Amino acid sequence: MSTTFFYHAQAAIDKQVDFDSSEATHITKALRMKSGDSIQVTNGRGALFKAEVLIDKHHVSARVMEELKALDPVVTLHLGIAPTKNADRIEWLVEKAVEIGVGEISLIQCTHSERSRISIDRIHRVAIAALKQSQRTHLPRINEVVDFIEWLKLVNSKQRFIAHCMDHLPRTLLRDAIETGASADEPSSSVCIAIGPEGDFSEAEVKAAESNSFRSVSLGNARLRTETAALAAVHTFNLINQY
Amino acid sequence: MSTTFFYHAQAAIDKQVDFDSSEATHITKALRMKSGDSIQVTNGRGALFKAEVLIDKHHVSARVMEELKALDPVVTLHLGIAPTKNADRIEWLVEKAVEIGVGEISLIQCTHSERSRISIDRIHRVAIAALKQSQRTHLPRINEVVDFIEWLKLVNSKQRFIAHCMDHLPRTLLRDAIETGASADEPSSSVCIAIGPEGDFSEAEVKAAESNSFRSVSLGNARLRTETAALAAVHTFNLINQY
Repeated sequence: MSTTFFYHAQAAIDKQVDFDSSEATHITKALRMKSGDSIQVTNGRGALFKAEVLIDKHHVSARVMEELKALDPVVTLHLGIAPTKNADRIEWLVEKAVEIGVGEISLIQCTHSERSRISIDRIHRVAIAALKQSQRTHLPRINEVVDFIEWLKLVNSKQRFIAHCMDHLPRTLLRDAIETGASADEPSSSVCIAIGPEGDFSEAEVKAAESNSFRSVSLGNARLRTETAALAAVHTFNLINQY
Repeated sequence: MSTTFFYHAQAAIDKQVDFDSSEATHITKALRMKSGDSIQVTNGRGALFKAEVLIDKHHVSARVMEELKALDPVVTLHLGIAPTKNADRIEWLVEKAVEIGVGEISLIQCTHSERSRISIDRIHRVAIAALKQSQRTHLPRINEVVDFIEWLKLVNSKQRFIAHCMDHLPRTLLRDAIETGASADEPSSSVCIAIGPEGDFSEAEVKAAESNSFRSVSLGNARLRTETAALAAVHTFNLINQY
């Protein structure tokens, strides 16, 4: 079933959308689909459609026919994360975060950040693959690397948290700090969580965040790598909002 | 700090333990340590020691001097997981599960399991690396692949859960099903969670598990890959038992 679920940013009622050559090869060779076969297409912005495959030699497109009920809720979580030295750890995180549920991912450059070469294009492709795999209809927005202090000014989430390891600063467990909505129809208000680099945030960064209405939180006593901490935060948010 | 934390299964008070050549190279070349330098060594069974490095040409050992207070609690979680087709997904899971906290990992062969070549040795090495990285003192036990029905008879955890995706069978959210202890000193009684292959458990397997006191649980509505589901389960257990 998962193989008939596709993503196309331009999908809309009564529209015909073209697939690129890699998706076309996947549809004709791997899935051995024929013209007229039925598929599902999401636009990545919450809408899910029933569509019909059209194959004209190597050109593959889909005619969007009707809108279906999408089941996955909007995830109001914005994750800020310092890129890791190995880009594949961030790519792994993005895959898992999309599966579990995330609305927006920002890459933040911190004082103690390691040097890393992050390809936003690649991360975007990983997110799309995970979207299709998990049959979600909301593709998270992924933002270019930005200086942490600049980023603080861009965040507009209602609940804001910064996870750090400074024992001398008061911190609440993230689990207990997130306020949830009353029901599945009334989810948690928008939440932003910032996860620092392996060397942690600097104290100045924590102070700057607190001045921007971020609350200091802890993810527990375990020593987690950056990407593990980020995934723990994403999972905590989703677990607390599970109905 | 993390670089001076080592694992040696034979570490014990007043003992001298030898490091293998790879650890020896790490100590002398990467960390540039000298004889007399102080390190921490765990035996992986809950004990943490202060020790002194002894370097004799290429032979590196440590003299264990005193026992330190280990801070990480025993994690009473036994995870049963169907191996994935790509072994690296299981290795990734083991790394993350050790960071977050797991007591025992069993590889279970299910009706819908994909063919996979799992090296228990390799998984064991991944677990040790994660133990050192996260400075934990309890190395999880990792069991060889065993048939799921046989495995059910081996599990002796007090609370037992099987996570599956069958909507027609009654399931509780794992989050709500785990009973916790009253405080950090009185943790959750032993818990076992079984996670099936991509094609899910068979209904016969679910019935067999339920006959062995396993309760059917759900991890929520998201479609998760096997290794993501396993990590979500491990994190749920640890989050619920956080004080």
